Amino acid sequence: MKLLYHTPLDPAQQAAFGITTPQPLAMADQVRFSELDTLNHVNNAVYMEWFERLRIRYVQDWGLSNYDRASDPRIVIRSGNIHYRQEMRMDEDYVTTCGCTAYRNTSFSMVQQVWAGGTLRATFDCVLVLLQPDGSARYPIPAAVRTRFGAIDRAIHEG
Amino acid sequence: MKLLYHTPLDPAQQAAFGITTPQPLAMADQVRFSELDTLNHVNNAVYMEWFERLRIRYVQDWGLSNYDRASDPRIVIRSGNIHYRQEMRMDEDYVTTCGCTAYRNTSFSMVQQVWAGGTLRATFDCVLVLLQPDGSARYPIPAAVRTRFGAIDRAIHEG
Amino acid sequence: MKLLYHTPLDPAQQAAFGITTPQPLAMADQVRFSELDTLNHVNNAVYMEWFERLRIRYVQDWGLSNYDRASDPRIVIRSGNIHYRQEMRMDEDYVTTCGCTAYRNTSFSMVQQVWAGGTLRATFDCVLVLLQPDGSARYPIPAAVRTRFGAIDRAIHEG
Amino acid sequence: MKLLYHTPLDPAQQAAFGITTPQPLAMADQVRFSELDTLNHVNNAVYMEWFERLRIRYVQDWGLSNYDRASDPRIVIRSGNIHYRQEMRMDEDYVTTCGCTAYRNTSFSMVQQVWAGGTLRATFDCVLVLLQPDGSARYPIPAAVRTRFGAIDRAIHEG
Repeated sequence: MKLLYHTPLDPAQQAAFGITTPQPLAMADQVRFSELDTLNHVNNAVYMEWFERLRIRYVQDWGLSNYDRASDPRIVIRSGNIHYRQEMRMDEDYVTTCGCTAYRNTSFSMVQQVWAGGTLRATFDCVLVLLQPDGSARYPIPAAVRTRFGAIDRAIHEG
Repeated sequence: MKLLYHTPLDPAQQAAFGITTPQPLAMADQVRFSELDTLNHVNNAVYMEWFERLRIRYVQDWGLSNYDRASDPRIVIRSGNIHYRQEMRMDEDYVTTCGCTAYRNTSFSMVQQVWAGGTLRATFDCVLVLLQPDGSARYPIPAAVRTRFGAIDRAIHEG
Repeated sequence: MKLLYHTPLDPAQQAAFGITTPQPLAMADQVRFSELDTLNHVNNAVYMEWFERLRIRYVQDWGLSNYDRASDPRIVIRSGNIHYRQEMRMDEDYVTTCGCTAYRNTSFSMVQQVWAGGTLRATFDCVLVLLQPDGSARYPIPAAVRTRFGAIDRAIHEG
Repeated sequence: MKLLYHTPLDPAQQAAFGITTPQPLAMADQVRFSELDTLNHVNNAVYMEWFERLRIRYVQDWGLSNYDRASDPRIVIRSGNIHYRQEMRMDEDYVTTCGCTAYRNTSFSMVQQVWAGGTLRATFDCVLVLLQPDGSARYPIPAAVRTRFGAIDRAIHEG
């Protein structure tokens, strides 16, 4: 099967790539030279760029922000837990995933993964916070997004 | 037509993307968030990463080096001329190209381009030099590669 | 007081910069343009580069590895917990710190911080693992380093 | 002599670092791990970040733009010629320089250099263009800046 890059993968495509549990959003890409460090593997910091790229797509697709309207909330990462399980090499195809596991009034928790060659390479569990456009105060998660967190991501609502 | 990423594009695919003159090697990719700077467009330095990535693929496909054998030459960029013609934005699809225009005993000249939305966005004309694996001296371009430069790239042999 | 960059800061210099508890290793630097993203602040992934840079210096200064001898262990990051507390802006001076809090036979725990303008901007708690140069098996922390972890970092030895 | 980082160096300090002809603006920094690639030297694209960082400082110090007023011109790089003369290694101290060599109504030419260990490592000659804040048209170089180009940089006024 030809891997589709830069496009959301459906559950069947995710399964074909070896992802054991389908995730709400998953997109494929390929390791490039500029992402390698002197150890000839993908540098630790680069995973954060991969995760961030998919979170931005997720935030847009789920209707949280378009990053272009003055009224859109700012979505910032508060904290995260990263696990490096197996290194990545030049030209490897990989799939990055994300999904919401829990949400509160103005913040939500995400699980992110990197898969390649049928194995889980890294995970990142993080907490994102919504702020007013000027950063002055918290911004409540819109009702439509909360519904989507529940219906698509099967996320838990935490009082 | 669905754009194929990370794969050499044939002349018809290049033409469909708006490239006016087909190039010896061309591959597509998509602008990502980490490549943007505070001006909300692709940072000038990032084009150099795009060009480098394609040169590495070219060097491998043309048989100059696999970057893994101790006997392979080191291929270094000596100088280059970059022209920025039109800025690139988030999520734009683009195609990077390269081709050899002239070669000498131990060096060759390349022309590289970035295309997006049917327009030429940037060009990079550079000179690459082959060195012995230990960097001590020049390394001659193998006969098979010289033949390929002429047959595929239509490159000129400069005494 | 003029801030010294790229040089280990002693406890008095750390205190003068606003670091409340002196850390085993601390070095100053300045935010640069290429580290900013479209939100005009330092991108989340860049903190990982700052932390990594200081860990490499630490590993060299504490005698764990010089990154140039074939017999040196490979030191890889297994997991980490990052907290972003306050964003960083263009040209800000900052100090990155690190110190070992606990060690075991073949792994150790570090605490890393970023300080600027008298406030803690980010923290990274991580676990590092020592591997044989070929990555085949674990590598024990040398006795001299264990002694240093205890004497300088006041790290705990965990069975 | 202790090298001062992130601070404009005067002609005596530049001479002490081995720069043969003092440049209008010169600042020192140190190679960091994240700037190296798999060849264990500074990646070609990174030099562009170094040059850009100093140009931004230059543009601010010479009064062309503060990058924060809505009325400030946009200053974009139109083209450039880069020469790589000698590779850079981990932890090397280096000085980046810039100066204007010629100016016209709405554009100017710069010469940039990287020096380390008493030798010239790379040069970048480029042309910068001033645009209206909305990018719609050219923006004339203010009289005070033209005077400065002549008095400090000894730049030539080209028709």
